Amino acid sequence: MGLFGRKKKVVPEPVVEEPTPTLPALPEVDDNGWRSWADHRDWILDQVEPLPPFGMQVLDALGLCLCEDISSDVSLPGFDNAAMDGYAVQAADTWNASEKAPATLAVVGEIAAGGVADQPLAPGTAMKIMTGAPVPEGADTVVQYELTDRGTEDVRIFAQIDQDKNIRRKGSDIEEGDELLRDGDVIDARTIGLLAGIGIDKVLVRPRPRVVVISTGSELIEPGLPLTDLGQLYDSNSFMLAAQARAAGAQVFRVGAVGDDEETMKQTISDQLVRADLIITSGGISQGDWDVVKAVAPELGLVDFAAVAMQPGKPQGFGLIGEDKVPMIMLPGNPVSSFVSFEAFVRPVIRKLMGVRPELREVVTAVTQTIIRSKPGRAQFVRARIRTDAGGRRVVEWIGHSSSHLLGGLQQANALLLVDAETEVIAAGDQVKAWLIDE
Amino acid sequence: MGLFGRKKKVVPEPVVEEPTPTLPALPEVDDNGWRSWADHRDWILDQVEPLPPFGMQVLDALGLCLCEDISSDVSLPGFDNAAMDGYAVQAADTWNASEKAPATLAVVGEIAAGGVADQPLAPGTAMKIMTGAPVPEGADTVVQYELTDRGTEDVRIFAQIDQDKNIRRKGSDIEEGDELLRDGDVIDARTIGLLAGIGIDKVLVRPRPRVVVISTGSELIEPGLPLTDLGQLYDSNSFMLAAQARAAGAQVFRVGAVGDDEETMKQTISDQLVRADLIITSGGISQGDWDVVKAVAPELGLVDFAAVAMQPGKPQGFGLIGEDKVPMIMLPGNPVSSFVSFEAFVRPVIRKLMGVRPELREVVTAVTQTIIRSKPGRAQFVRARIRTDAGGRRVVEWIGHSSSHLLGGLQQANALLLVDAETEVIAAGDQVKAWLIDE
Repeated sequence: MGLFGRKKKVVPEPVVEEPTPTLPALPEVDDNGWRSWADHRDWILDQVEPLPPFGMQVLDALGLCLCEDISSDVSLPGFDNAAMDGYAVQAADTWNASEKAPATLAVVGEIAAGGVADQPLAPGTAMKIMTGAPVPEGADTVVQYELTDRGTEDVRIFAQIDQDKNIRRKGSDIEEGDELLRDGDVIDARTIGLLAGIGIDKVLVRPRPRVVVISTGSELIEPGLPLTDLGQLYDSNSFMLAAQARAAGAQVFRVGAVGDDEETMKQTISDQLVRADLIITSGGISQGDWDVVKAVAPELGLVDFAAVAMQPGKPQGFGLIGEDKVPMIMLPGNPVSSFVSFEAFVRPVIRKLMGVRPELREVVTAVTQTIIRSKPGRAQFVRARIRTDAGGRRVVEWIGHSSSHLLGGLQQANALLLVDAETEVIAAGDQVKAWLIDE
Repeated sequence: MGLFGRKKKVVPEPVVEEPTPTLPALPEVDDNGWRSWADHRDWILDQVEPLPPFGMQVLDALGLCLCEDISSDVSLPGFDNAAMDGYAVQAADTWNASEKAPATLAVVGEIAAGGVADQPLAPGTAMKIMTGAPVPEGADTVVQYELTDRGTEDVRIFAQIDQDKNIRRKGSDIEEGDELLRDGDVIDARTIGLLAGIGIDKVLVRPRPRVVVISTGSELIEPGLPLTDLGQLYDSNSFMLAAQARAAGAQVFRVGAVGDDEETMKQTISDQLVRADLIITSGGISQGDWDVVKAVAPELGLVDFAAVAMQPGKPQGFGLIGEDKVPMIMLPGNPVSSFVSFEAFVRPVIRKLMGVRPELREVVTAVTQTIIRSKPGRAQFVRARIRTDAGGRRVVEWIGHSSSHLLGGLQQANALLLVDAETEVIAAGDQVKAWLIDE
C-alpha cells in the first residue's frame, strides 16, 4: 500500500478552555441597587494603569510627572566662586585697613566669569574678580568694589575684611550625590531650573494622556451653525469635557457630536481607539429607547452600566474597549451631570494615567451662610461660589440651582460642595466640604 | 531764456524738531538712590499695553482673556423639553391614578431627541418622550418611566401627576439677550461649555504673548553637555524663566545662553525682535566690567538700569527695543534673583499683555512659627514653604536660606514671604504676607 493510501493519524488538538474575559467584581450596591460614587471611582481607577514613561526635554516636561529618582552628578556651586564683583585677596592683607589708612595691593590679574586665574594669588596682591568667577587659589576672601577705589594697577581697600567674605563655597547649595527629586514629583518651573542647573537636559516622565471626547445625540448641532429645527440644541458637552481634560493635563482630540445611529457610533469609537489612552463619551447611557452608547458599547468590549448614588450624575458607564482594552468612561448627557461626572471620575483617571499623586482633588471646607438641604440616599454635588478671606477662611457666598441642565449657573460656580449621601441638612454657619474647581 | 536756464526756486523744507525719544519719568528714589519694587513694577507696567485681540476657536481660547461682551442670541433650553425619559401627557388625565387604579392612555406617538411630535397631544392620549425632546403642544407634564408600565400601545400610569413635572421650560437656564460674559473674563472649561451651548464657535481673545528668553554669560554650558573647564556652570536661568513664562500663559522661545560678547549679544537681541512681544534676559546687568547686557542695551533702544530696594533682585533693567519698541526686561543673573524678579516684574507684564486682571498675584497671609528678621531698607522676598490646614489656615512651616544662588532651596519652596522694606522683625506667631507660587 502506497503512502498516499495510508490513513493519517489525526491527533486531536487539546481543547483550551479560554475563560470568558470579564470586568473585575463590581462594587456592592445599596437597597436601591445603587453603588456609592467613591466605590465606583475606585473600581474604575483599579482598572487603569499609569502610562509608560519616556524621555523628554526638561522644558517640555513642565507639568508632567517624573518617573525616576534624580540625584546630582555635580556640586552646586561646582567651585568656590565670588558672590560679588570685586577683588580676591588674602584677608590678612587688609588687617587694620580703614578709610583713612587703606591697604594698597598690586592688581596682578582679573578673572571673568568662566575664566580662571593663571596663577595662585600671592600675599600682598589682589585679582579683580567677577561675580560667579572661581576664587583663585591662595585667596581667602573677596572685597566688593564698594570698599575699594576700583584701581586697576593698584587697588586701595578701605576696610579690614574678614576671611571667607563674598565666597560661595563649592557644594554649599547642592553636593554631588544629593538626592534631589523622586519618582512621582510633578515638574514645575523651579524643578526645571534645578534640573538644568545640575546639567540634566532630559528626564523620564509619563506623557500627557491622549483623550478622545465624543458627544452623542442626533439633536446636537455644532456651534457656529444655525439651528434649523425645533428640538435641536448646540453641542456644549464635547467642548466643555475637552477643555476640562486639557486643563487636567491631557492632550485632547474632540470628535464632533455623533448622531443616534448604532453603526456610526460603533465605527466612530473603533476609529478613535488607535490614538486614545482614554475615551470619554457623553449622553446615550440612560434607560431610554434611544440610548445608543449603551446599545453599542457591549459589542465593542467589556462594559458596565451602573446607577451611582449621586446627584447629578446617576447613570454611569465604564468599559475596556477593543483589543488593547482602552478605558472608556461613558458619562450622562446633561451638561451639569457631565461636568460633575468628569470631576468625580475622569479627572482622577487622567491623573492616574499621568502618574500624578494624589489622584483625587483636595477636599477643603467652607462655612455655609444658608441652610443646605439634601435628599438622603445620594451624594449631592452642589454648584457654589466660595470666597476666601485674607486669613484663608472660606465662605460659601452663592449656591446654584440643582437642575442638571443649567450651563449658566455652572459657569458662575467656582466650587462643588460635597454633601454625603447620609446628610439631610447642613445648618447655616456649619462647615461643608468642597472642591475648588477653579484651581 | 529757456526753461532750463531758469534758476529753480528752492523752498527750504521746514525743520521739524524731532523730540529725542525718552522713557517716561523715572520713579523716585530713596536716600540710597534705590526705587521701591512696587514703583519699579508700576513704571514698567505703564509702558506695556495689552496685545491686540483676535478671533479664536473657543476650545483654543482656554486660559485666555475674552475681549468682548457676550450676550446670548438663543434661549437655553431653546424649547420646552422633557427632563426625564417617559410619557408626555395631560396632568388631568392622571387624576386619582394609583398603583391599584392606574390611568390608561393610548400611546399615539414617540418623540426622540431632535425629533418633533407630528401633531398636538389630544386629551386621553400619551406620547413617549426622550430626555431633551420637545414637549408636544397640548401636553402639560411628563411622567417618568418608573411610574408607568412602559407600554407601547397603551400605557398605564400608576400615580397622579401634577402639571409641569419633568419639563424644562424654554429660557429657564438662559434667556435670549442675557448678558453672560464680559470683556476681561478669563475663559475656563465652564465658560467654553457655556459659549458652545449658546452656539458660539469663535471668540475675540488676546493671544498668548510671545516671550523670548535669553540668558547671558560665557561661563554658561548647555545642560547635557560636559563641563570641561573650571569656572563653567550649567545654564539654569533660561530654562527656569522659560518655564515660569509658559506657566504664566506665554508662548515661549528659549534662546540658549549667549556669551559675554557685545556684537553677538546685540545681534541675538535684534534677531529676536521680529517674534517677540517681550524679551527677558538674565545676567549681565550688574556693575561689573563684563556686564554685556548693560553695555549693549543702550545701543538698541531706550533703556533704564536701576537699583531696586529689594532682596534678592536689586539690579534691574528695562528697555523699549528696536523700531517697534519691544519691551525687554533685564533681570539679574543669580538664579533666585532671577526667579523672584520674574515673579515681581515679568509675570505682571505677561498678564497685562494677555489682558488678565488683576495683573498682580494675590497676596495671602500666613502665620510664621519662627521669628523673621529683615534688614530694613529693602523689601525681602523670602523662600518658604506654607502649609494650609483643612480649615484654610496657612502656616509657614519652612523658611529657606537667604543666599540668592541656591537652586536647591528654591525648588523646595512653595511660597515667597513678602517682608516690607520698613519691617525689621516679624515675631513668631504673627502674620506674614506671602505669594503662593505653586498656584
